[in-house]
Amino acid sequence: MALIVKKFGGSSVCDAESIQRVAWIIAETYSEGNNVVVVLSAPGNTTDELIEKAMEINPHPSKREMDVLLSTGEQMSVALMAMALEKLGLPAVSLTGWQIGMNTDSEYGKARIKGVSAERLKAELDRRRIVLVAGFQGVNKFDDITTIGRGGSDTTAIAIAAELGADLCQIYTDVEGIYTADPRYVAEAKKLDEITYDEMIELASLGAQVLHNRSVEMAKRYRVKMEVLSSLVRKPGTKVKEVTNVEHIKVSSVAKDTDIARIAVVEVRDEPGVAFKMFRVLANEKINVDIILQSINRNNTNDISFTVAKNDMKRAVEILEENRDEIGFAKLEVTDDIAKVSVVGAGMMSAPGVAALTFEALYDAKINIGMISTSEIKISVLVDSGDADRAVTAIHNKFF
Amino acid sequence: MALIVKKFGGSSVCDAESIQRVAWIIAETYSEGNNVVVVLSAPGNTTDELIEKAMEINPHPSKREMDVLLSTGEQMSVALMAMALEKLGLPAVSLTGWQIGMNTDSEYGKARIKGVSAERLKAELDRRRIVLVAGFQGVNKFDDITTIGRGGSDTTAIAIAAELGADLCQIYTDVEGIYTADPRYVAEAKKLDEITYDEMIELASLGAQVLHNRSVEMAKRYRVKMEVLSSLVRKPGTKVKEVTNVEHIKVSSVAKDTDIARIAVVEVRDEPGVAFKMFRVLANEKINVDIILQSINRNNTNDISFTVAKNDMKRAVEILEENRDEIGFAKLEVTDDIAKVSVVGAGMMSAPGVAALTFEALYDAKINIGMISTSEIKISVLVDSGDADRAVTAIHNKFF
Repeated sequence: MALIVKKFGGSSVCDAESIQRVAWIIAETYSEGNNVVVVLSAPGNTTDELIEKAMEINPHPSKREMDVLLSTGEQMSVALMAMALEKLGLPAVSLTGWQIGMNTDSEYGKARIKGVSAERLKAELDRRRIVLVAGFQGVNKFDDITTIGRGGSDTTAIAIAAELGADLCQIYTDVEGIYTADPRYVAEAKKLDEITYDEMIELASLGAQVLHNRSVEMAKRYRVKMEVLSSLVRKPGTKVKEVTNVEHIKVSSVAKDTDIARIAVVEVRDEPGVAFKMFRVLANEKINVDIILQSINRNNTNDISFTVAKNDMKRAVEILEENRDEIGFAKLEVTDDIAKVSVVGAGMMSAPGVAALTFEALYDAKINIGMISTSEIKISVLVDSGDADRAVTAIHNKFF
Repeated sequence: MALIVKKFGGSSVCDAESIQRVAWIIAETYSEGNNVVVVLSAPGNTTDELIEKAMEINPHPSKREMDVLLSTGEQMSVALMAMALEKLGLPAVSLTGWQIGMNTDSEYGKARIKGVSAERLKAELDRRRIVLVAGFQGVNKFDDITTIGRGGSDTTAIAIAAELGADLCQIYTDVEGIYTADPRYVAEAKKLDEITYDEMIELASLGAQVLHNRSVEMAKRYRVKMEVLSSLVRKPGTKVKEVTNVEHIKVSSVAKDTDIARIAVVEVRDEPGVAFKMFRVLANEKINVDIILQSINRNNTNDISFTVAKNDMKRAVEILEENRDEIGFAKLEVTDDIAKVSVVGAGMMSAPGVAALTFEALYDAKINIGMISTSEIKISVLVDSGDADRAVTAIHNKFF
């Protein structure tokens, strides 16, 4: 008898039909003799509808009250799913964040999980009940309701799987697993049977929207075995593990991210500490900087370019202009008409041909490369946003 | 500085405009220096919509899960109202049933309040916050969510007012207070300035839908000063007290109840214990019997007539037929084409003219009286349902 944690997103609980389909998936796993904990998101557009209602009343509500409001969505989901399971004659019980002791810090809207109290969960599983847990929500030390941010139901599921020592944590999505590239853009994309945590983290941070970054990091930390699979098709998905059995594959996936902007800081004085000052003022504003490129020294000045998320662009420029005297630079050049294309694969760097093949693929497709960034398991290049899809396809077809 | 508990129903929180109007009422009381606790129901039709969603999935859901689902409605109300108050620059905090320790028994769907833990409420009031409490909901000893039944937000408000020793508990409705008759039917109906708990309890049980019966009983037990007033018009409402200052008024109100049926059990043997058997089998089925009339002995048999709520009629007949041999009767005669018209007033029985005036009013209006029932503060008569409105008007105009 295994303990399996399953997580279903909002589209899986958006109407009676979807809820009943998911109930059958749960029933199957339970009836095979497994203990089952199910984490659910809010139904369909409920969260957006609640936000809209709030905005009508107060465009700047406190985050505490926003969390009280939004946490009702998942509570609806778990109650309705429990009813669907009861209809199938199965014992089910729904539990909210506070009922399972999902303890978080007090950062309303993006709280971090501090721990789960397994007591209630274990008591219900011991009674052979299917436990339905409201995702995305917790309580802080004052017994106030918190939410752990959008996409946070994945993290709820991983945290519970870690606490209970689950045998598997299944994340159900609307795709069949992790692909070698986004199947919507690259017809030749193939589903992977396995992928490592590190590869998955790189993919998540690259804008592959399948899994929430934080949840994969938590899964890695606590060695939670995960599977990403479809709620629509009954097929094995992609297993996420520490080490995969498929070492011969150098490249796991090719992904693009168009949600970025590039800022070039032109003619920065070539003095120690200048780069430090520049990135400190950005860090103080919680602006994450991604790829950084420093040009060769020219007349005792450098050009420093870097990328940020698109919605940080305006603020980053303001901050740099405000600190222009302290940092010392001639001007800023900004563009958001770019995309980042990345090749991800464990052990990629130990295979020297990967970078060469990547650049060859782009050269063959006559695509100009802006900036290049590499890590142990990733190569990213900046290209014009109009070239992004062609670049992904070219690189993908070079490797697969 | 007084402590005032206010309760608003679903129509007061059904949209942004209503919420903002209520926020202004709350703001006014708070700004006069009072501490304010506000109990809210679910917005508008939310409860009905949630029930509909549940029925789509499972026509017979467990009551536990129904309570988990339904309790989300009030949680939305309190969060949205807190946001509206924040917009006015006022400090507000929303709290759910479990957060204020609203402890109940485990009768899901119609739980009874066992107690409120005042700790959190007092801490928030000490910080001069306006406290918004989700009505209608609580938790049982297992930390499971319960609801205290429809109309239960009134009871939530009274329980909190009792626990905190509030100076006043204001129940806001869509009418301006308690009237001498239903103003929708009787043009001459007048608003009362004051009414006693007992009169209010009689009125509630007579089908005057202004206040929930249980909440007035609780208010009486804990001597909670109440006021019933309008959320639409800024006028004093009706105060509900132990003793009113207006002793010269014998009759407080005239009300009708058309939700009743009469069952006549014909030719019951005139033996000891027969009536007992009959009403025991009905009580076993939780069927409440209201007015009972036993005819004069005729050939060693009696006719026994009584009234029940309309939706108990069918079951009552079934139960009696099933036990026909044990009880012993010739036949049943049933009608639901009747109405109960009642005259309520403290100290009514000490004024012998009231009954006479009532019957005189009906005689003048040529209305036949079916059965008559009297208590210390009430006279009820059964009339044909077609005569009910005329009867109310006739009696009302005789007294006022």
